[in-house]
Amino acid sequence: MIKLLTSWLESANSAETLFPLNNLPYGVFSVGDGDLRCGVAIGDRIIDATGLEAAGLLRADPQADVLDAPYWNDFMGLGPKVWSAYRTALTGMLAESADAAAQDAVTTFSVPMAEAVLHLPFRVSEYTDFYAGKHHATNVGTMFRGAKNALPENWLSIPIGYNGRASSVVVSGTPVRRPWGQIKGADGELPVFAPSQRLDLELELGAIVGQPSSGPVTVAEAEAMIFGYVLLNDWSARDIQAWEYQPLGPFQSKATATTISPWIVSKAALEPFRAPTPPRERPLLPYLAEATSGLYDIELSVALAPSGMRESAIAHTNFREMYYSAAQQLAHHTTSGCPMNVGDLLGSGTISGRAPDSRGSLLELSWGGKEPVKLDTGETRTFLEDGDTLILRGHARGNGYRIGFGDCSGTVLPALEDPYAR
Amino acid sequence: MIKLLTSWLESANSAETLFPLNNLPYGVFSVGDGDLRCGVAIGDRIIDATGLEAAGLLRADPQADVLDAPYWNDFMGLGPKVWSAYRTALTGMLAESADAAAQDAVTTFSVPMAEAVLHLPFRVSEYTDFYAGKHHATNVGTMFRGAKNALPENWLSIPIGYNGRASSVVVSGTPVRRPWGQIKGADGELPVFAPSQRLDLELELGAIVGQPSSGPVTVAEAEAMIFGYVLLNDWSARDIQAWEYQPLGPFQSKATATTISPWIVSKAALEPFRAPTPPRERPLLPYLAEATSGLYDIELSVALAPSGMRESAIAHTNFREMYYSAAQQLAHHTTSGCPMNVGDLLGSGTISGRAPDSRGSLLELSWGGKEPVKLDTGETRTFLEDGDTLILRGHARGNGYRIGFGDCSGTVLPALEDPYAR
Repeated sequence: MIKLLTSWLESANSAETLFPLNNLPYGVFSVGDGDLRCGVAIGDRIIDATGLEAAGLLRADPQADVLDAPYWNDFMGLGPKVWSAYRTALTGMLAESADAAAQDAVTTFSVPMAEAVLHLPFRVSEYTDFYAGKHHATNVGTMFRGAKNALPENWLSIPIGYNGRASSVVVSGTPVRRPWGQIKGADGELPVFAPSQRLDLELELGAIVGQPSSGPVTVAEAEAMIFGYVLLNDWSARDIQAWEYQPLGPFQSKATATTISPWIVSKAALEPFRAPTPPRERPLLPYLAEATSGLYDIELSVALAPSGMRESAIAHTNFREMYYSAAQQLAHHTTSGCPMNVGDLLGSGTISGRAPDSRGSLLELSWGGKEPVKLDTGETRTFLEDGDTLILRGHARGNGYRIGFGDCSGTVLPALEDPYAR
Repeated sequence: MIKLLTSWLESANSAETLFPLNNLPYGVFSVGDGDLRCGVAIGDRIIDATGLEAAGLLRADPQADVLDAPYWNDFMGLGPKVWSAYRTALTGMLAESADAAAQDAVTTFSVPMAEAVLHLPFRVSEYTDFYAGKHHATNVGTMFRGAKNALPENWLSIPIGYNGRASSVVVSGTPVRRPWGQIKGADGELPVFAPSQRLDLELELGAIVGQPSSGPVTVAEAEAMIFGYVLLNDWSARDIQAWEYQPLGPFQSKATATTISPWIVSKAALEPFRAPTPPRERPLLPYLAEATSGLYDIELSVALAPSGMRESAIAHTNFREMYYSAAQQLAHHTTSGCPMNVGDLLGSGTISGRAPDSRGSLLELSWGGKEPVKLDTGETRTFLEDGDTLILRGHARGNGYRIGFGDCSGTVLPALEDPYAR
């Protein structure tokens, strides 16, 4: 495991920071009434990458400005060689050995993180959500179809996924309004239109596609197309989902909001933390075979803070628990010839471990609402209540440092009294 | 039913044309090596709307150029009042009563349709496909789950839909490569990765969202957001679909291609052809109630031409056969608060009538492959074969005129021998 890369910027060397020099995650920020700019987190500061580019001090493309936009998509489109060269150059400007000119440039073109507002780091082209956690699929399947038929027949062969709604993706901190929808009680003859009573989270990692494809790609090619990862909360209205999802899958139950962390952690930063996918219980078809370990050792947690109260941890898990990697999911996504584009977002699927307190959704944690989760404050939860704030966190742990994403949070607002009142 | 509006442009007055003055559909064209331009079809010509705007002869927005782009999205974003004013102005320039200056402008800024190549008329923001044809859902359900459980329990309450893949949308004339995918035979222990043997069409109409929304909208508000309609072929690999679709819906089976007609027929042009949605077999929830008739009397047909042979009609149906209108689908789409954007495309779902020869897919026409469809050439088809060209057509019929979309066609190319050979 590589060591902390030390920086002349002291706050980047703290064992507490999520943003040491080893990380350098990509985000979009603004300060005051200023415009949205591309930024890179380091310690307690944000480097103004847009400003460095405009000043000619650090350019991704000598010919064209790619960071004069409120998203990293144009940069991603330049491809892995540029990603690598840019990271190397920026590392050089921040390393302890950096010369005075580099230190001056960074000092001029950076702001305190505490003064910045963070925005969506990239423009989401299309969004696909997968179902690649075996413990999650087994838990949900057991509740819905019984233990014998828990895993769908295709699950061990296909990285099951469905298309989500890109327009639902919001950045951490955006409040989430409890949705209305069609809900049918167990004994109800007809459905009612009402606010969801079973609003839930799903703890996921999102992989960001940084290169396009126009035909089937191998897992190795898919791996090379991935730019980085974000934390992702796939807010889910379980009561709406239960009534709508047959036969064509989840739709409005997943369309209210999908929250992502403000920072994209690059594949390069996560490289030292690669972890193997688990043993295969059924042989995979050759097109899904992996040359390299496709998962990462990323510690994940979920905390819940009721309105006005302190937060309680409700789950701890690890991205290693997944059955399929993002590269396998992306390769499968292209089998049909489906074109993939820069800025496509792939949700991993809910990340649950084997232990009861390692489950990535309240549906599982409360076992369908039957076993309320106890919070440190004495409160209990089956599903989310109005005013609850949900915080996903994640980091990879190096020797004396951590690589983090920043909080991925959202507060539940009460449902509209009348969704059609204007 | 309103009469033909006559034009000084003679070809627009023919009973044969799909593009009389009553139509004025929106498309994107190029001539030779020229750039892509916004155009409007009239008779056998295309009006260069981009050119008229640049010359100041017909502007949608006095302040900004909205047609200096290879798509109509910016124009759509201006909203219904502008759509209406632009149509009125253009109608005036083309009507028999038009003055010499208007006729000169149109003559200068138009090209023969025969010389033009047509492109996607709008940039697809996101794509949703519905399942709103009751005959289709009943036929498919009967094949998959038996006659007793044909219609899913939620079908009469929800306009069932799922998110599709916007990147798969192509314009008429684009060849469609037979996809590879995971397929499991009835007696196979494990799935194989192979070219689809059950490639199918789905005859649909696509509604184009021309205005954004950020919360739940009523059916009346949804109706006002719709800009127009295209023909749509939702190419479907039935064998891939059967193995992948549980529990989260169709994914790669629908991602190879979605072909749309080159012309967007505006809601205004279809206005005289409104038709009611059918009687409700179960009361709809109030949020789905319609104030106006939400369907249209649009005659639809499917023709199939084997490679090198003449085409045979294989189905005739009508958009009146649907159970839910596009406005109802769009209203349902927003119930969760899902944001909708300019350029979102909503597939109606397969349009099948009651009669066997009015079914909008080969799955239904051949009853799951058991009853081959006879072509006029003596050939038979269960599913599509390599080299087959599929042509969807549609028009509303007025008194002495037709409002058409242009052919929505595609030819099936053989599967790649090895999808991973480079």
